[in-house]
Amino acid sequence: MALMKAAVFIEKNRIVLDEKPIPNIGPLDALIRITSTTICGTDVHILRGEYLVAKGLTVGHEPVGVIEKLGSQVQGFHEGQRVIAGAITPSGHSNACLCGCASQDGVGTPHGFKAIGGWKFGNIIDGCQAEYVRVPDAMANLSPIPDPLSDEQVLMCPDIMSTGFSGAERGGVTVGDTVAVFALGPIGLCAVAGARLLGATTIIGVDTVAARIGVARRLGIDHVVDFKQGNVVEQIMTLTGGRGVDVAIEALGTQATFEGALRVLRPGGTLSSLGVYSADLHIPLGAFAAGLGDYRIVTTLCPGGKERMRRLMAVIASGRVDVSPLVTHRFRLDDIEAAYALFANQRDGVMKVAITP
Amino acid sequence: MALMKAAVFIEKNRIVLDEKPIPNIGPLDALIRITSTTICGTDVHILRGEYLVAKGLTVGHEPVGVIEKLGSQVQGFHEGQRVIAGAITPSGHSNACLCGCASQDGVGTPHGFKAIGGWKFGNIIDGCQAEYVRVPDAMANLSPIPDPLSDEQVLMCPDIMSTGFSGAERGGVTVGDTVAVFALGPIGLCAVAGARLLGATTIIGVDTVAARIGVARRLGIDHVVDFKQGNVVEQIMTLTGGRGVDVAIEALGTQATFEGALRVLRPGGTLSSLGVYSADLHIPLGAFAAGLGDYRIVTTLCPGGKERMRRLMAVIASGRVDVSPLVTHRFRLDDIEAAYALFANQRDGVMKVAITP
Amino acid sequence: MALMKAAVFIEKNRIVLDEKPIPNIGPLDALIRITSTTICGTDVHILRGEYLVAKGLTVGHEPVGVIEKLGSQVQGFHEGQRVIAGAITPSGHSNACLCGCASQDGVGTPHGFKAIGGWKFGNIIDGCQAEYVRVPDAMANLSPIPDPLSDEQVLMCPDIMSTGFSGAERGGVTVGDTVAVFALGPIGLCAVAGARLLGATTIIGVDTVAARIGVARRLGIDHVVDFKQGNVVEQIMTLTGGRGVDVAIEALGTQATFEGALRVLRPGGTLSSLGVYSADLHIPLGAFAAGLGDYRIVTTLCPGGKERMRRLMAVIASGRVDVSPLVTHRFRLDDIEAAYALFANQRDGVMKVAITP
Amino acid sequence: MALMKAAVFIEKNRIVLDEKPIPNIGPLDALIRITSTTICGTDVHILRGEYLVAKGLTVGHEPVGVIEKLGSQVQGFHEGQRVIAGAITPSGHSNACLCGCASQDGVGTPHGFKAIGGWKFGNIIDGCQAEYVRVPDAMANLSPIPDPLSDEQVLMCPDIMSTGFSGAERGGVTVGDTVAVFALGPIGLCAVAGARLLGATTIIGVDTVAARIGVARRLGIDHVVDFKQGNVVEQIMTLTGGRGVDVAIEALGTQATFEGALRVLRPGGTLSSLGVYSADLHIPLGAFAAGLGDYRIVTTLCPGGKERMRRLMAVIASGRVDVSPLVTHRFRLDDIEAAYALFANQRDGVMKVAITP
Repeated sequence: MALMKAAVFIEKNRIVLDEKPIPNIGPLDALIRITSTTICGTDVHILRGEYLVAKGLTVGHEPVGVIEKLGSQVQGFHEGQRVIAGAITPSGHSNACLCGCASQDGVGTPHGFKAIGGWKFGNIIDGCQAEYVRVPDAMANLSPIPDPLSDEQVLMCPDIMSTGFSGAERGGVTVGDTVAVFALGPIGLCAVAGARLLGATTIIGVDTVAARIGVARRLGIDHVVDFKQGNVVEQIMTLTGGRGVDVAIEALGTQATFEGALRVLRPGGTLSSLGVYSADLHIPLGAFAAGLGDYRIVTTLCPGGKERMRRLMAVIASGRVDVSPLVTHRFRLDDIEAAYALFANQRDGVMKVAITP
Repeated sequence: MALMKAAVFIEKNRIVLDEKPIPNIGPLDALIRITSTTICGTDVHILRGEYLVAKGLTVGHEPVGVIEKLGSQVQGFHEGQRVIAGAITPSGHSNACLCGCASQDGVGTPHGFKAIGGWKFGNIIDGCQAEYVRVPDAMANLSPIPDPLSDEQVLMCPDIMSTGFSGAERGGVTVGDTVAVFALGPIGLCAVAGARLLGATTIIGVDTVAARIGVARRLGIDHVVDFKQGNVVEQIMTLTGGRGVDVAIEALGTQATFEGALRVLRPGGTLSSLGVYSADLHIPLGAFAAGLGDYRIVTTLCPGGKERMRRLMAVIASGRVDVSPLVTHRFRLDDIEAAYALFANQRDGVMKVAITP
Repeated sequence: MALMKAAVFIEKNRIVLDEKPIPNIGPLDALIRITSTTICGTDVHILRGEYLVAKGLTVGHEPVGVIEKLGSQVQGFHEGQRVIAGAITPSGHSNACLCGCASQDGVGTPHGFKAIGGWKFGNIIDGCQAEYVRVPDAMANLSPIPDPLSDEQVLMCPDIMSTGFSGAERGGVTVGDTVAVFALGPIGLCAVAGARLLGATTIIGVDTVAARIGVARRLGIDHVVDFKQGNVVEQIMTLTGGRGVDVAIEALGTQATFEGALRVLRPGGTLSSLGVYSADLHIPLGAFAAGLGDYRIVTTLCPGGKERMRRLMAVIASGRVDVSPLVTHRFRLDDIEAAYALFANQRDGVMKVAITP
Repeated sequence: MALMKAAVFIEKNRIVLDEKPIPNIGPLDALIRITSTTICGTDVHILRGEYLVAKGLTVGHEPVGVIEKLGSQVQGFHEGQRVIAGAITPSGHSNACLCGCASQDGVGTPHGFKAIGGWKFGNIIDGCQAEYVRVPDAMANLSPIPDPLSDEQVLMCPDIMSTGFSGAERGGVTVGDTVAVFALGPIGLCAVAGARLLGATTIIGVDTVAARIGVARRLGIDHVVDFKQGNVVEQIMTLTGGRGVDVAIEALGTQATFEGALRVLRPGGTLSSLGVYSADLHIPLGAFAAGLGDYRIVTTLCPGGKERMRRLMAVIASGRVDVSPLVTHRFRLDDIEAAYALFANQRDGVMKVAITP
């Protein structure tokens, strides 16, 4: 039985590089040889024991690689093809998938819906911080990489680009909108790019870290609000002449950013929440206009599936958006523990790391 | 100067019938002689001092009447015409109106948006619990009553039908949906009718009052969940085979109903909130799926304007919906103080009262 | 090798009952024992050689039956379960499926789209006017029948209810709309039911056959326009006070109905076309307002997939819509040639026939 | 009575500069002193007698200027303010306006809708190729010019930017779409900019004029298809690997461009038509997939109103789109007859002319 290297969750605060068997695949699966992957903030939650996964699970959900082997029923692909798959791998055939809610794929449940059910890699099945990964429902999830694009160019597509863009899409950003993005980490930066791609004309970024703000400017923010320089809500209301923003995108997962995003909405505006929260939220009566403000609050889990990936890679290939500045550090898979140490502690200005087996 | 009778807010716990001058009208206004009106839960908030209006203001925002006089610039209507106007009277020409958010009409603000700005009657201008009312921006707001309809048949259109229906509309109810409506007061009952009108096939009503449940059955609920008979969330999850509901409509304005509505959503479902809240809200982390459930929370203020009113009266005229069982009591305007006493204390099984000058 | 009876296309004007092997199934398929099916207008086009299929193909695309056998990879169902499948059987995993356009499923094409590609039964694979049918992509397509419903109650779901309803859905019918339905055959009758289900308040049916008009009245039309009693466009413009209709649904597939539907639209209205055309169409300049009328023309192929079927059966189960009057005649599979003779010639007031093996 | 200069339609092939009284204004109007305007293709149709207007009417519908005088009921603006108004000037209070269809504004009709009813300037009231223009419903239509923007920078907003962008918006262009734009005149060029602004990643422009193609490249096209170099449909199908385009925008108004746009759609795609047609259209059966392709055809008249203008000027101010290359020639109002001669005959590489009184 052939072995491979894989980053494995052992226990709280311990993800280690270990040897595991190369996965077997079933008739609908594909085996991908990973050529690039990365670490996500969610992996850090797993590392810290804040999000529970099974001991022994291979972590990671952002695969770039080459098709090593196809299941007997998989058509439309060939071995040796360069592909990505999304962090979320919908089956395509659950009720959730068939009514436009693929991230909440509930295959195996009696009714076809399951919260976060589309997130499988590094959550309920082995993930891709490894030499190989098994991709379930391969026909719905493998997306060929356009020839001219490098691994690193498409490395953000599986998760943070899809998630960040969805913040703008589900928020309903449209031509001429004013948008505020709360927190300019990787997701927030991609939300900036997405808001710009959809026609927002005034984008306000909220953060304080110079390097992030620098990347945000390249991706499309028009104004910076530094939360260390005064009250964020007041600064945004001043910038918008007292009107507020059409869409506020929350990209951190805290009470402060959620509440700030709500308070800066114009009447009838939308709070688009992308953060993963770790505590209850509080909605002040006034910020909610007592329920009479025609506000919308939408939350979104990363959209996946091969058509989504195809479209995101088309964005990269077109040159409309360049997320390459997000990759600040590069590691071999052999050094992934060092990569975790750097990334989890946000040392050395790290935004995203590229991991190559 | 001709005088008229009007229900006037004097101070906390005192709304009295008084004499006031018949309103003057400007070039864009209309003067309506009221033939029927009603009392809303919001008026009770005003009575109790929970929602502040100016002392001396005429209250009431649900006008049915006859055009007595038209402003010099008003075209397309004639004196003597039977009309209604919505509780919300958008100008038609603010930025909010022109981008599809008319209830948040901000005429007079530099940017054209104002929270709850479209609600004028009995809020920032004299209302319609009186013999006459001035309707601002008459061309955008007067809606002729189709001949065969009586005053009482259209009396719910200006506010509760428009609000209740919007709970289903903004919630995105579609063919085959399962919908739960939390609280079967007048707004909740209209939300039931709206959900049914839009194709919901399983409607679950949450309440405990037999009379309300009886009306709800006639308007379209398929199941009743009595909150006195056990945990509401558990009952609804059992009824739906563990799936949850596509849309939950909150129609009361409390933490319990809001939280219940959130907890019964299927992954990817929508909480459509209609209630007027009087305290901060709390969102439990689990109920919110940590931000990853693809949930939407939408809040809606009653849609107004003449086209909305025309459509609601078309619903009544078509016989698709019969809201007449909602009117349980009738009073002369002279007896409006007694009507308030009955309605504010929810005595004698009252749902809505009809007031006729 | 076990044999079964099946209605087979031999050549133009010859569909005969023949013996064929019971289908073999692959890992993703299901074998359904048919308990009820029906004949569609499209089958008549096939019979007449107007729509070409392979000689020897089993025809029919509206299956109601019992799961006889499941492919090795099919989960979530069990043998003996009563199920239907839609006329259109999307794979769930093509690009078309994954971007919300499942009827144009292009599995096997390089890009994942194919016109009418989701229609397989009786078109590119053997259909269901037989004792058994193989259902491809079973997990995406099998939909369990709710217990209390009979075969005949759900027999319209696979095609004409789905198609007819989609005419109203894709047309954007909303509360208070005025809708005209051109031709009250089975599809048009279901469009009437769909328009009513979505909140239309004035529904005008265009036809001349008394029996159809009678059923249409039960399903929701408010006015009849008889094309033998004068100019259809003029009659509808008179009925609507010169305004025209919000949505016109074309349900026949001719120049006359298409053009009439276009001419009765209010400015900004939608023509929702369901008909299968057999000749080029002509758009008069005036009817098109020279391109400046903000009109929309949408065409729709029957939506399929198990979630769609689940929702349509929920409509039936709820009692909101009763399409049972559409089944006017019943035949044994053994007599299917007689059924074709009756149906193809529209004899004896036939609307739909039920066929039972 | 003070006089002004104005370009007046006299008869077929004669638009002349004449003297007319400066317009009087009513309570809801504004008088604008024109500082810049332009000539539209529609004006050429008027010149040629292909679109009929009253003899003696002042033509032109793209006003940039300064508020000279406000009607007695107009609030929220002040004299001396720099403003634009859209080519289409909705009232804000018709039923069409109140249901989101403002371009078909039917003030004065019994039902509130009228085809092309929102187009007033130079159509049913005096236009703006003059020293002064009366703006009706000023509160809904005046939009202040942001300080840093010059007249010429905002000169395309009233019509061609609004129209061109709407081709992409109403076509539903979304992230990763492939879009073809048929004809790269001023409207088509703005459609390119709009498609790019909304996230299209592959934009194909169809034309043959080098200067237009050059501007199109700057505005966002990725590929050019020259109709003189072969069959347009074949070229586009080759470019898209046989898939076709998600959205095809027609920007000329001919059978050839309309039919080409239809033929290049992927199954489920949208034809967004902007052209003003002058003859009947023909839809070949195959191009229409016999009605089964899930195609949509949408037509759009230029959206107007002050909120639309505000958003378009925000696009310009943000630097996202630069339409200044479209203005190729400049004339004094005194020389407008020469401007017409140049523009109507498309001499000297003209795209748009700027006219300054």
